[in-house]
Amino acid sequence: MNSPVGFIGTGRMGTPMIRNLIAAGFSVRVYNRTAARTLDAVAAGAAACTTPAQTVDADGIVLTMLADDAAVRATMLDQHGILNKLGPGGVHVSMSTIAPATAQELAKLHDQHGSKYVAAPVFGRPDAAAAKKLWVCTSGDAAAKSRVRPVLEALGQGVVDFGDHVESANVLKLCGNFMVAAATEAMAEAFSLMEKAGINKQAALELLCGGVFASPIYRNYGQSVVDVSHDPAKFLLRLGLKDLRLLREAADQYSTPMPLADLVFNRLQSGVAKGRGDMDWTGLALGARDDAGLNA
Amino acid sequence: MNSPVGFIGTGRMGTPMIRNLIAAGFSVRVYNRTAARTLDAVAAGAAACTTPAQTVDADGIVLTMLADDAAVRATMLDQHGILNKLGPGGVHVSMSTIAPATAQELAKLHDQHGSKYVAAPVFGRPDAAAAKKLWVCTSGDAAAKSRVRPVLEALGQGVVDFGDHVESANVLKLCGNFMVAAATEAMAEAFSLMEKAGINKQAALELLCGGVFASPIYRNYGQSVVDVSHDPAKFLLRLGLKDLRLLREAADQYSTPMPLADLVFNRLQSGVAKGRGDMDWTGLALGARDDAGLNA
Amino acid sequence: MNSPVGFIGTGRMGTPMIRNLIAAGFSVRVYNRTAARTLDAVAAGAAACTTPAQTVDADGIVLTMLADDAAVRATMLDQHGILNKLGPGGVHVSMSTIAPATAQELAKLHDQHGSKYVAAPVFGRPDAAAAKKLWVCTSGDAAAKSRVRPVLEALGQGVVDFGDHVESANVLKLCGNFMVAAATEAMAEAFSLMEKAGINKQAALELLCGGVFASPIYRNYGQSVVDVSHDPAKFLLRLGLKDLRLLREAADQYSTPMPLADLVFNRLQSGVAKGRGDMDWTGLALGARDDAGLNA
Amino acid sequence: MNSPVGFIGTGRMGTPMIRNLIAAGFSVRVYNRTAARTLDAVAAGAAACTTPAQTVDADGIVLTMLADDAAVRATMLDQHGILNKLGPGGVHVSMSTIAPATAQELAKLHDQHGSKYVAAPVFGRPDAAAAKKLWVCTSGDAAAKSRVRPVLEALGQGVVDFGDHVESANVLKLCGNFMVAAATEAMAEAFSLMEKAGINKQAALELLCGGVFASPIYRNYGQSVVDVSHDPAKFLLRLGLKDLRLLREAADQYSTPMPLADLVFNRLQSGVAKGRGDMDWTGLALGARDDAGLNA
Repeated sequence: MNSPVGFIGTGRMGTPMIRNLIAAGFSVRVYNRTAARTLDAVAAGAAACTTPAQTVDADGIVLTMLADDAAVRATMLDQHGILNKLGPGGVHVSMSTIAPATAQELAKLHDQHGSKYVAAPVFGRPDAAAAKKLWVCTSGDAAAKSRVRPVLEALGQGVVDFGDHVESANVLKLCGNFMVAAATEAMAEAFSLMEKAGINKQAALELLCGGVFASPIYRNYGQSVVDVSHDPAKFLLRLGLKDLRLLREAADQYSTPMPLADLVFNRLQSGVAKGRGDMDWTGLALGARDDAGLNA
Repeated sequence: MNSPVGFIGTGRMGTPMIRNLIAAGFSVRVYNRTAARTLDAVAAGAAACTTPAQTVDADGIVLTMLADDAAVRATMLDQHGILNKLGPGGVHVSMSTIAPATAQELAKLHDQHGSKYVAAPVFGRPDAAAAKKLWVCTSGDAAAKSRVRPVLEALGQGVVDFGDHVESANVLKLCGNFMVAAATEAMAEAFSLMEKAGINKQAALELLCGGVFASPIYRNYGQSVVDVSHDPAKFLLRLGLKDLRLLREAADQYSTPMPLADLVFNRLQSGVAKGRGDMDWTGLALGARDDAGLNA
Repeated sequence: MNSPVGFIGTGRMGTPMIRNLIAAGFSVRVYNRTAARTLDAVAAGAAACTTPAQTVDADGIVLTMLADDAAVRATMLDQHGILNKLGPGGVHVSMSTIAPATAQELAKLHDQHGSKYVAAPVFGRPDAAAAKKLWVCTSGDAAAKSRVRPVLEALGQGVVDFGDHVESANVLKLCGNFMVAAATEAMAEAFSLMEKAGINKQAALELLCGGVFASPIYRNYGQSVVDVSHDPAKFLLRLGLKDLRLLREAADQYSTPMPLADLVFNRLQSGVAKGRGDMDWTGLALGARDDAGLNA
Repeated sequence: MNSPVGFIGTGRMGTPMIRNLIAAGFSVRVYNRTAARTLDAVAAGAAACTTPAQTVDADGIVLTMLADDAAVRATMLDQHGILNKLGPGGVHVSMSTIAPATAQELAKLHDQHGSKYVAAPVFGRPDAAAAKKLWVCTSGDAAAKSRVRPVLEALGQGVVDFGDHVESANVLKLCGNFMVAAATEAMAEAFSLMEKAGINKQAALELLCGGVFASPIYRNYGQSVVDVSHDPAKFLLRLGLKDLRLLREAADQYSTPMPLADLVFNRLQSGVAKGRGDMDWTGLALGARDDAGLNA
């Protein structure tokens, strides 16, 4: 039988992941800053805790799935945080999309306390989490990764490892999100031109996605772009801006100019400035339409 | 039995297309400015002609598959060109990737001579042409399109129509090539960052292309980017530059700012300036590497 | 005494230039497509002609100051154009802002007819033309430039020569306009940020223009940017777009990526798409404001 | 007689500023992390201290002129820093080019300790500092600014105030540096095109700077661009990168997309990646040359 696993962050991603852990036989203790948001997890069989530290035993495994770097840092370092609880043998599996530099900093703090930090960001939205279709990318200490692998395998369709550098999985995750935004911008520009040229956009989308662009991103995001439909949000535009901000910081850290990343960052930034922060992040496509005078 | 079809341009795309026409029962007369390049088509059963005009009867069908706008224009307008030959009932099916404005101009000239111009650019490389896997996009006069449809169906896996505006199919084709270049740039930036961050690029490519980017462009072009391998060329970088130049002209014609198109145009332009014009056009990815100091 | 000089194009630039020629003792024959626009020049002492060819003798000097490449080409090549009139010894001084490639093409046509083409675009607006403060840049045939120099010296404060390549002066003129647009964009972004940060923009402008940016462009254009005031137009935004289009074509001709030129071109293109084509071209600064949500 | 003033940071900017303070009758106590660098200031009449705190009395005035945000923060907060020394009545005049967000944070810390923080970044290089030609921009608490004004007036040709928001002067300073970098990029692109078109660049520079661009930046920086000469450095390229990084953070803080700032940031970032970090920051112009194949 599995020993209990801590899970901090019972939001739209965390809750279905917790259900999968329980379905796989794990006993799970959960914590969320807003306690009411743990109700669904508790209904699924999880035990609610009142501090992060309570979710995990001294040498246990705790997963965090939170909104941003500050939330992860607080969960580790606050008075009842996990850093002072874990100790030797303990492993913190950090699944949020955060900055590579933050991962490096937090891993070092764990090292100083005898515990281990494993980076394990995921690819997939809440529906993929529910369907156990996430992909999990890991990086960090080999022994710790080995120990937590059964937990991670219960969450999705595969675990792909990216080696010992703890920040690697975060860099990769940010690159993936950047590539999604870049594809959205490419479609935004192309479909704006097509609209102004009087072309049947739906037929064009079907042609392109029936051929060289036959992938979920182009099909699904492309449909939003063609329909100029960005509500309700599956992933908030302002969270997309946050991810691209982290990507730009990583690009700066590694001295890699990324002009396309800057372009999509500015689209998202402009979206927030225009009051579109709570739209779906495919709404970055509205920028190209604005420029072309299509939204007047 | 089918009446003879003219085919002008027996290059790497034209020759396999001619083979498919012959296999489908059409009799084909071919012309190429460099006559020796018709040998493969003749070996496949085509009849060689010494002028463009000879390839087609007065009310016949002639296809052109040529390198650029100037070549199509010359084939139509030169002394022994097809414009003065076709006359009422004749149809010119123009399959090259050319400017929308050129399509509009050439269609008007045909109208003045009683013949019709059908735009029919294709998606697919020489290997797709050989495998009869091309997608053909059409636009222009409805009756003319109806008449040539059996010919076009012999060339690929489908014909998709984009209405009466003769330039529409060309706009779409240019948008498709732009989107391919944009995807290449996105991968170029992402994999440059990953390389500098010490990440296993091959594993990253497989992860991304096993998920949301599971499409031929990301798999195949992505492999070239990961391997930094752009020879031998499947599609010349300098021809990619030509296509993006046409896309920029179309964007200007329809007052649609396309900053991402400008970015990839500049990558290709810089590639030519640095002596990379005869590489495969995935070589545009070298620009991001240059900027990051990776090619020093 | 000076022999008569032809002057084609009696617009806002041409008319004050004609006045200066007359003041300097030249006898001037003028032509304008819209004849009524020659009235001011005639009132100043010029003789009106009804065709371009009538303005100049067979071996004379004719100046053109027109809106675009097409107008210059028509003036040369139409039935009563100047090309068939000039002949050996005749000189066409082309002062409009046109494409370097057009200059090369027109110079070749003159060579074939025995006449000479001198490129002589000017720096300065109508008020500078009136005040005889223009700068004239020349390029082309040395002997022809030598002959027309007294005429050009009557128009401004100096003539600067750029050698034998006929297109050089045009490249330079386009670069100058590009640099003006680039300075406007820089100020547009900087003052948008300052406005959002609650900074006194007028004080900032005075500080910057009292120091390292103490030049007319930064003072005058900067004031328009600070005041968000772009009417009435001194130079139409859509003509600025035309100039940047020519600059992009020149950059393409010489394989020189110019991403900043693309940025300002897109600002102007977007301005036209949003209905701002008849504003002053400092209105390109509205693009940065739009992006920042300042015009909502 | 003036009471003593503290001055922390005796580098290439600080040392001539200290000389001017002494010449104006102030007695100055100096500190530098590397003590040997205080020798010139001491030779000019300053008194050397061994900690930041020693430079200033409990209610005195201390100026900091340091390399970056971290250095200013350390000088304030380290064990023998100035924050715990100043107390009510004390004023910290922070003259370094730092982030607006850092100014806000440090001002708040001073408020909590009863002392005041005045932002006072300067425009001008070491030669301008020596010639007492700096421009000083101030922002922050009105009474504190009033008290330190005589000190600041001894340093340059003028003090310009930007109000109560402590970060305003820093935003302005960063905007000024951005505008300089933008002008450099504009010239880099223009002169690259001219060089490829065979134009006399020196004549072109003189023409442009004799007219609408008649300002020190265009003359001096333009000469470096024309000569492709970026050594020895007057201002290090990697410090320019730092300033543009701060500008981008400010643009992000105020939701203002600045694509031209991103372009010059990437030029500088690429310069560092290519080993040009210790060149003069006009070396950002090499990026356009690289793209055009001019440095091969």
